[in-house]
This record gives sequence, C-alpha cells and structure tokens, in this order.
Amino acid sequence: MGIGQEYREYNAWLQPHSYRFKEPFRLNTSPEVPMVARDECKAGMERLFGSGIWQEDAKKSVTLHINSQLPAEGYRLTNGSNGIAVEGGSQNGILYGVFGLLRALGIGQFDEGTVAESAPAVERRVINQWDRADGTVERGYAGNSIFFKDDRLDFNPERIRDYARLLASIGINVIAINNVNVTESSARLLTAEALPKVAELADIFRPYGIRLALSVHFESPVLLGGLQTSDPLDKRVAAWWNAKTQEIYQAIPDFSGYLMKADSEFRGGPASLGRTQADGANMLARAVAPFGGVVYWRCFIYNCMQDWRDTDTDRPKAAYDLFKPQDGLFEKNVILQVKNGPSDFQVREPNSPLLGAMKHTREALELQITQEYTGHQIDLYNLAVQWEEVFSFPVNRNQVLRDLIGNEIDTVAAVSNVGDDENWTGHTLAQANLYSFGRLAWNPRLTAREITDEWIKLTFGTEPEVVEKLTDIMMSSRGAYEKYNAPLGIGWMVNINLHYGPSPDGYEFMKWGTYHRANRVAIGVDRTSRGTGFTKQYDPYLTEIFDSRETCPEELLLYFHRLPYTYVLKSGKTLLQHIYDTHFEGVQEVERFIALWETLKAKLPGTTFVSVKQRLLKQLENAEEWRDVINTFFYRLTGTTDEKGRKIYE
Amino acid sequence: MGIGQEYREYNAWLQPHSYRFKEPFRLNTSPEVPMVARDECKAGMERLFGSGIWQEDAKKSVTLHINSQLPAEGYRLTNGSNGIAVEGGSQNGILYGVFGLLRALGIGQFDEGTVAESAPAVERRVINQWDRADGTVERGYAGNSIFFKDDRLDFNPERIRDYARLLASIGINVIAINNVNVTESSARLLTAEALPKVAELADIFRPYGIRLALSVHFESPVLLGGLQTSDPLDKRVAAWWNAKTQEIYQAIPDFSGYLMKADSEFRGGPASLGRTQADGANMLARAVAPFGGVVYWRCFIYNCMQDWRDTDTDRPKAAYDLFKPQDGLFEKNVILQVKNGPSDFQVREPNSPLLGAMKHTREALELQITQEYTGHQIDLYNLAVQWEEVFSFPVNRNQVLRDLIGNEIDTVAAVSNVGDDENWTGHTLAQANLYSFGRLAWNPRLTAREITDEWIKLTFGTEPEVVEKLTDIMMSSRGAYEKYNAPLGIGWMVNINLHYGPSPDGYEFMKWGTYHRANRVAIGVDRTSRGTGFTKQYDPYLTEIFDSRETCPEELLLYFHRLPYTYVLKSGKTLLQHIYDTHFEGVQEVERFIALWETLKAKLPGTTFVSVKQRLLKQLENAEEWRDVINTFFYRLTGTTDEKGRKIYE
Repeated sequence: MGIGQEYREYNAWLQPHSYRFKEPFRLNTSPEVPMVARDECKAGMERLFGSGIWQEDAKKSVTLHINSQLPAEGYRLTNGSNGIAVEGGSQNGILYGVFGLLRALGIGQFDEGTVAESAPAVERRVINQWDRADGTVERGYAGNSIFFKDDRLDFNPERIRDYARLLASIGINVIAINNVNVTESSARLLTAEALPKVAELADIFRPYGIRLALSVHFESPVLLGGLQTSDPLDKRVAAWWNAKTQEIYQAIPDFSGYLMKADSEFRGGPASLGRTQADGANMLARAVAPFGGVVYWRCFIYNCMQDWRDTDTDRPKAAYDLFKPQDGLFEKNVILQVKNGPSDFQVREPNSPLLGAMKHTREALELQITQEYTGHQIDLYNLAVQWEEVFSFPVNRNQVLRDLIGNEIDTVAAVSNVGDDENWTGHTLAQANLYSFGRLAWNPRLTAREITDEWIKLTFGTEPEVVEKLTDIMMSSRGAYEKYNAPLGIGWMVNINLHYGPSPDGYEFMKWGTYHRANRVAIGVDRTSRGTGFTKQYDPYLTEIFDSRETCPEELLLYFHRLPYTYVLKSGKTLLQHIYDTHFEGVQEVERFIALWETLKAKLPGTTFVSVKQRLLKQLENAEEWRDVINTFFYRLTGTTDEKGRKIYE
Repeated sequence: MGIGQEYREYNAWLQPHSYRFKEPFRLNTSPEVPMVARDECKAGMERLFGSGIWQEDAKKSVTLHINSQLPAEGYRLTNGSNGIAVEGGSQNGILYGVFGLLRALGIGQFDEGTVAESAPAVERRVINQWDRADGTVERGYAGNSIFFKDDRLDFNPERIRDYARLLASIGINVIAINNVNVTESSARLLTAEALPKVAELADIFRPYGIRLALSVHFESPVLLGGLQTSDPLDKRVAAWWNAKTQEIYQAIPDFSGYLMKADSEFRGGPASLGRTQADGANMLARAVAPFGGVVYWRCFIYNCMQDWRDTDTDRPKAAYDLFKPQDGLFEKNVILQVKNGPSDFQVREPNSPLLGAMKHTREALELQITQEYTGHQIDLYNLAVQWEEVFSFPVNRNQVLRDLIGNEIDTVAAVSNVGDDENWTGHTLAQANLYSFGRLAWNPRLTAREITDEWIKLTFGTEPEVVEKLTDIMMSSRGAYEKYNAPLGIGWMVNINLHYGPSPDGYEFMKWGTYHRANRVAIGVDRTSRGTGFTKQYDPYLTEIFDSRETCPEELLLYFHRLPYTYVLKSGKTLLQHIYDTHFEGVQEVERFIALWETLKAKLPGTTFVSVKQRLLKQLENAEEWRDVINTFFYRLTGTTDEKGRKIYE
C-alpha cells in the first residue's frame, strides 16, 4: 500500500489510498439516512479502495441506518458475513459512523467479525476561529481567514464545505466563526444586514452536524442598539438581547449560542459596570434559553495592567479567585470556558485549578490548536502529546481531568489553526493537531500515540517505515520544543506580542503579570502556600504535592517554586546544568528529526517532503537561537560555565 | 509686560504680547520687498505692541529694503534716530530680517543705536517630515500628518501656511514632506496625477522662502515607470529619472531635490543591485543638476540582520566603512546626510566619525527633533542642550563640529516633531525643540541657554520669575532624562519598536546590532583600537582620547569601553553606584520640575499650565519606572545593594 496519485495536502487526512479489498459492496441506505452520510460513504470507500469497490450485484453490502437505541451522536459498526452495517443514533450519528468506518478501514483495523461502538464523551465539541472581520487571523499562521475579508463575511462555499467535512470527520459539532476579541465590524455580524450571510454559512455547516456560534461584543446594545448602556441588569439591555436573539434564531434555528470574552485584556464586561460575571452571563443565557442555546463565557480574566513591582498579585490565581465564589449563581445554560492552564497556553503549565472546582456550574475546557507559543506552525509540535498530559493531570487523589470530561466538563473547545493556505495549517504536519483535537474531544481516553498513528496512516498510508519514523518524530516533537524553550515550566521567555523566538526578559517588566524574577542566584516565583498561595486553589492533595520541591512534578518545578540554580534535581544535575543540557539536547533532537525526515524522501509526497523539510531547517535555526539565547542569559547571570565545556556565548 | 489675552498654543513662539514702545511708526517698503515680508512686519509689530504702533503720521519709520551687498539670505537691522531699517540681501533676506527684528524686539534686545547683522551658516536648512501617505507620522507624537490622509496629499492650506510661517521665522528653507521610508502610495507623489497637488503645496511654501523636496523610492522606475529594473547604471533607468525630474521642475521650478534612504532597513538601493552608493546617488544627481537641484543621500546604512552572536560586526562602524572609500566619487550636487551619532538618535552618543571625514563630498548633518528615543513628547527634553554638545564635539585637535558647519557640512537637516495637534508638538514645551533647530541651523554658535531664553520670552513673555524657572527646568531636562535612562552612553535599553519606556535586554538578542552584553561583572562593548576598532575611524587625536578609560569623556564611557561594575569613576564612585545614584537623582529632578512648575501656575496660560503639568506627572511615573527597572536589572545581575540603602526592587 502507499500514497495514491491524487494525494493533495488540501485533503488533509481524507487522502486517497490504493488499498485492496477482498470483494465489492453494494450500498444500502434507509430513507432517513441523510444524503451527506450516503455521499461520504460512497466517496470515502472509493477514496480508499478505488471506484471498483461498488458493484450493484455485489454479494456484500454496506448498510446505513438509524438505530434510536444508540446515543444520538453515537454509532455502531459491524463487519459481518453479509457486509458492513453502520448504525447511528441519529442522522448525525450515522455521519459519524460513516467517518468512523472510513477511519477504521483506512488504518486497517476493521476486519470481518469486528463490532465497534462509539459515542462522544461530551455534548459539545467546539472550534473557536480567531478570525477577524478584516480577514486576518489573530495568532493565525496559515494565511488569512477562510470566512472574512474587508470587514465582512466573504467566503468560498466550496472551501467552507470542505472545512465542514474535515471537522465532521473528527466529530466537531459547533464552530464559533469570529475572534473572541470582537471588533466593531465583527460585532455587526448580529445586524439584520449581516445575518442572512451568517445564515448561509450555517446552512453549509448544518448537513455536517455542525452548529454555528458567534463571539459577541459585550457593548453590542450600545454599538448596535443605540442604547446608553450595556448594563446586564438594565431591562432595556436584556430586552435588546432578547429581541436580537429571537432574530438570530429566526435566521439560524439551530444556532449554538454566544461566545463571550468579557472584562479581559481591555474588553468591556459586567465588571466595568459594577456587575458580576454571573450578571453578565445570565442575561445572555436567559436570551438564548428558550431556543436551546448556550452561553460560552470565557474565564481568561486577570489584571493585565499589573505593576511588576507588585509581588502580591499573582496572575494564575485570578480566574479562580473571580469565578469560584460565584459557583451556583450561573444559569444552567451558561458554560464557563476555562483554558487548560492558569497562564496562557504555555508549553508547560499545570492544569487550571478552576477546572472541576465549580460544583454547580457547567464548564468547558479550552485548548489551543494554533501554535501561538509553540512555534507558529514553523516548529513542529504535536499537541496531542501535551493534551494527553492535560487530560491525565490530577484533580484530586482519585481523579484526573479526563474523569471530569463528560461530567463536570461537558464541553471541549479549541482555537483553530486553520487559514486559507492550500494545506489549511501552514505546516502540513500541523494538520495532525486539528485532527487530534477532534479525536480527543470525542474520546479523551485515546492516547497521543494512538491518535498520531491514526493520523499518519490516514494521511500518508500504512507503510511501516513511514509510520515508525513519523511517529518517532511527532511523538518526540513536543519534548524537543520544550527542551529548547523556557525551562521547567517558567514560561514567557518569548518575544513580546509576537510570541515567537526567545526573549528571556521580554515580559519581565511589563504589565501582563508574567514574571520569572531571575537574578544571579535564583529564579521563579514561590506560588506555594508559603508564597503567593496559588497552590491552595487546588485540592489539598495537590496543594501538598505542589508545595514541596521534592514531590512537585519536576517539569513544573519553576512554575511553583523559586529555586537557586544550584538546586539539585532528581537526575543529580543542578538546575543550571539541567538548563544547559536540555538546551543542547533540544537542538540535537531537531537535527535528528531532519535526518529521519531525509530518509523518508522517496516515501512521502514530494510537495510535503519539501515544505516540511524547509520548516524543519527553519526550526533548527530557531532551536539554535533559543538554545544560545537561553543559555547565554543564564550564563551571564550566573557566571557558571557548562560542565561539558560546550559553546555558550558570552 | 506679560502674556496677552490672545495667547494660543497654536501660535507657538509667535505669540501676542502687550509690550510698550516709546513712539509709533510708519511702515516704508520699497517695491521689490515681497508682500509676505511687509505683512509679517505689520502684523508682527501689532502682535508685540498693539495696533497703535502704526500711525501714518508717525515721525519714525520701519523701512524694509533690499541691499544686494548683503549675503542673499542675510539681513541687517539698524535702530537709528529716524527709526528702524531692515535690509535684506534678497527677498528672502528681507523676510528673515523682519523675523529677526520681531525676535529682537520680542526679547527686548533691540534698543535705539543697535545694529545687528546676521546671515545663515549654511545654504540649506532642511526639515524632514516623516509623514506617511496614510496620514500617520512615523515616530510622530503630536497627532496625524498635516499633509497626508488616506494615501494622498490632503491638507488645509491655512494650516500649511501657518507652518510655513513658523518655519520661515526660524530660517528653515527646505522641507521634504514625506517619510524617508517611502511606501508605494508615497512613491506615487511623482506621478502626473499627484504632481499638481505637490505643486500647490510648493506654492504655499514659496513665499516663505521654503523649497519643497521629496523622499523618493529607489524602485520608482519599476513601481511607476513599468521598467524591469531600477539599476542606476541602466540607461533606461537614468532616462526615466531624467524625464520624471523634468516633469517635476515644470510643476515646481524651485524644487529642492530628492531625499533618499537606500539600502537601509529593508529598503531597496544600489547595493541590492551590485552597484555603489555613488552609482545610485550620481544618477539622481545628474537628473536634478540642470535645474539646480540636489540629492540628499542618507548614510544611515548598516546590517539590520546581524546575529547577536557575531561580535566582529559593530554597527556604529558601518556608515564610515561604506562611504569613506567612496569619497570623491560623488557628483557635486550630492549631499550625504549623516545622523549626528553613529547609532541612532540615542540620548548620548559620540558624533559620527563620518562627519567631516569626507574631504571631497558634501555632507549634511541630520538631527532629530521628534523625540523618538527621548520621551515621545511626554517626557520633557530640551534638545538644544544636546545639540550644543553635538556642535561642540571635537573633530580633531583643533576643530569641533561647529567649525565644519558652512564648510564641509553645508546642510543641516532634522526630522520634524510636528503633527496636527492644536499645539503642533503634543508637549507644548516641545515647540522649543523645533524653534531651537531652526535657530541652530542658522547659527550653530548660539548656545542652548541663549536659544532657550529666546524661546521662553517669545512664547511666555519676559517676566523674570517665569524666565528664570522655565530656563532652569528646560536647561536641566536633558540631564534629568539621561540620568534615569540607559547609563553612560550604553543606549538602547528601551522597549523594542516603540522606543519608549525601559527594557534593559529589549534589543539584546535582536538583529539590529545593538548590544550591551551585560553580565554579572561587566557591561559594554570594547569599541577601542583593542576592540572592534571603531575608535580608529576618528582622527588619531580622538582615537587616543576615546581609547583610554581615563581620557574618554565619562558620559560616553560605556559607548566605547567594556567595564566592570566595580570600575571607579572620577567621582570616586563605582560604575554600579553611579548607575544607582543617577537613577534616583533623575526622578528627584522630575519632582523638582513639578514643584517649580506648580509655582508658575498664576503666571502661565491656563491651558498650557494644565497640559504640561499632566505630562510632567506622567513623566514622573516614567522616570520611576526607568529608575526601578534599570536599578533592578543591575541589582539582579550584580547582587550588590545600594550604598545608601534606597529601595531597589528584587
């Protein structure tokens, strides 16, 4: 088996292959099976096995039908002696079943006699586009928006449909199409003039089981409604939102709801009017409730005007301090959307203590697919590895985050990494991150290795050498990046605004609450019970673990502790020597990736081989720059040379 | 005497006063005296003394006439028993004479019996607007452009005329209206469609003796002419420039010439085509020569993609290394425009060794009025003090820069600080910087104190308390800023891109060639003969002075030397203690300015008192931020506490 001739990066993981199959099939579908499921099944099987797979007089059949005993979005696949049955709990379930079948066949794991059942872990699997109305994408590294241009919706329906297919194939069922930092022109998506175009978009996504959401501007009643205030306790404001919501649902009956970034990073919000987060969220929630909608209310709120001289304020504490006391005050259809870590999508963070802390409030986990702090889709970074750690991060003595998914946390959302580049994601291997997010949102018990294996096989085929080497590169990629980045969870040693490339003191004296406070003998902020008290926001079991240098996970040591460079790690190395060593190793890892990649030249599609190689070479430059800047920074501070005598610049 | 009722910040230093005069005058002008000189004389006298100053039957007269024995732009003022005579060497000379008279009367220094003669030190006194076609101003801190909007010239002729008056009153005679970083839309000023509007502008400036210049795009032949190349040695390229130049002079017969930033900071230029700077400049020079035009060719060229690990390259050396070998190769109407310092308008730099080094090539000194690195017209910074030092900086054993002005250096140019703010310059006291530039370009032998005294009296009147306190504040302002900024000439410890606020390592690992290389024991780059050899670009007399720690001017110690923090200065203090002390002192100076300012409340116009006070309070915050960041940076590196036990943050 190998790559078919029609490989195009644009197909992402829905690539053609020239697999063989023992015998042909007929396609049987019951009337309630949606057209799109039937079409995807027909085209998908042909993609894998060629058009000969279908023969009208074939003995075996692929049968699609609805089985209302199954969970609505769930499916069952049966490979029996008469053929393959795909049962879905609903029209969407059937579609997921078809994609599930194609995936299983595509990776060669669906032999005769197999029965496979699956249903999503959470009700809402959400993509957040950070697309701006002007057509650029905030933190986007794959070209411009596929949705917007020149301050309005302006899209190619075919491209949107192809995106919908990709998202449906990995189980995504909600998409918020505009950036959470809502500008005035983006706010205007709610106007009567703009809604028909939004509804067109919803019409494209609907057959793929995907509902639209909109990021909304907290000040919309003022900006659009001509009111004097956006105070959520003002009846006219609530009335305005109620009327506006009704208008939206008339155009888009299955509208998912509003996504709101309020009181954060210079956005307006209830706090600016002396109201609580619950006041703000509940007003919107009451507007969408009659229509079955929800409010995704982001918890990324902190003081972004902190004085670096202020050592009492500790940014990671902010969200918990603000929201925890309001637990129980939110309407039932408010979903508090919490980033995985308490900082901001850094390479290494603990999980947010707010995740699971709200006992009477729904929560969404927010991940980031776009590589803001993780290499801008130039450096290779397989996020599945990090996300597996996020899901495996303990909440208390008995539970890890994974155990809350589908329970306290009923929504998983992520920031898209997609733009109008031909290959969607800039770095072709970054397609794996979009894929992994969908798969993990569906089933958080999947391992990074399983998902990576799936993605490689679906994309590049099942040739063992390709699978083995690509798996090696991709499974190692996060570790390599972390090695040459800021050490041991300290984070933020990055060029300001851009968030790409090293700048050890870049954020050190700024107002964002991001300080490492490195001096000639020590580095870090004491966030333990004896320090800022951040660790006390966790379950006491974890507080104790994080409070102690000995029991704190070593990769998070500098997130929680202030330590001298002479502190000895479990490896027997000093903290400083560990920094030096990992930074040299990180570069060596990238060199190894390049060498491995080179050996796959004959086995990979030419365009992809070349474009990824170019990126790997640029990554090597980046890794060297990180290594040298970080090592030099610490060498200048400490005056301590590398034990192994390697080159550290003065 | 005091401030008249019609004080408006908009009037800048052409303010009304209610001075008294012994007797009235008649106004006598000969026919060749231009209308504008007559009008300015009439209005100006009324501004100072009230409309009663003119009486048709007055015994004494003010007489304006041309005396061709005087230098063309020069003038002679005589206050005799029959009245006042203003003689000018030309129409422009008369106008300068009128403004000279008004200045002398305005500051109370033109008693009966006085004869005063004056002529400009250099032929060209040039303002460079860094105005972008889109209406913003690069490094502008006083609002938007008064020339451009929405990618085209779009101006209020009245405002332009008022600007022309202000510039003429201080002797400016050339203005380049668009930013040296020429965009495609700014390049289009040369097109037939745009030229009529440029000519309109020239028509407004012409009566005030000011000629227009344009910054041009090196790639204009490609962008506008549809050619395949801009190679200066290509005949079609030269022909295109010749034809275009002819077209310009048809519209603007007194067009001053082209201003060019080539091969610098990502601009195209001859080097990118394998040609020399002389090749590029001479082609343009030959185009404008038949019309008496010149080419202002900027020398701000260096490697802006340097690797910080590269310690051989030393940015300050770049301009001399590039241009010195080409001395003698330039056409006679090429003027090489050299920034005062070899870095980039830092608070403290030595003079550029290129100034005066070209024995067979004309040079322009380029200063910066807009406060890019000097506080963004928030912090008070009287540039006259710095410029006096620039003019007094030695060139060799016998000469200082001032001695070259009007000789080797026949042009003085500066970047404007003006925008469409009501008061032109954001900070009202920053008007003094525009004023000082014009005065110094006319007469570099004026001292900062003399000019500051003039400006204060013309603007706020001659009340001794006002003059004394304002002089104190303004004469101290540069020193105060320097004290809380980067120490001893090291420069660059500033937020990247913005160039406002402290960031000690902000430029340390970037590609701009700006490194202090501070570690726990020492700071600085050795630029002596034993180091990068930069000092060898100076006259041997200066090489020897700069090479030695003992003889190097102490304020430039860290520009030229790498020194341990324990190095003992002439004061007996260590380098580190000097840093701490100056940073505490800088803040105290600003506190003193505020206290002094407060005492002037009743004696200054209310709007100005309030707006300047607001800025002083913001400056205090800035100074504290600088003090704390810089002190903390060095404290973290050295671990050495302040001898006086003052607060330095950890």
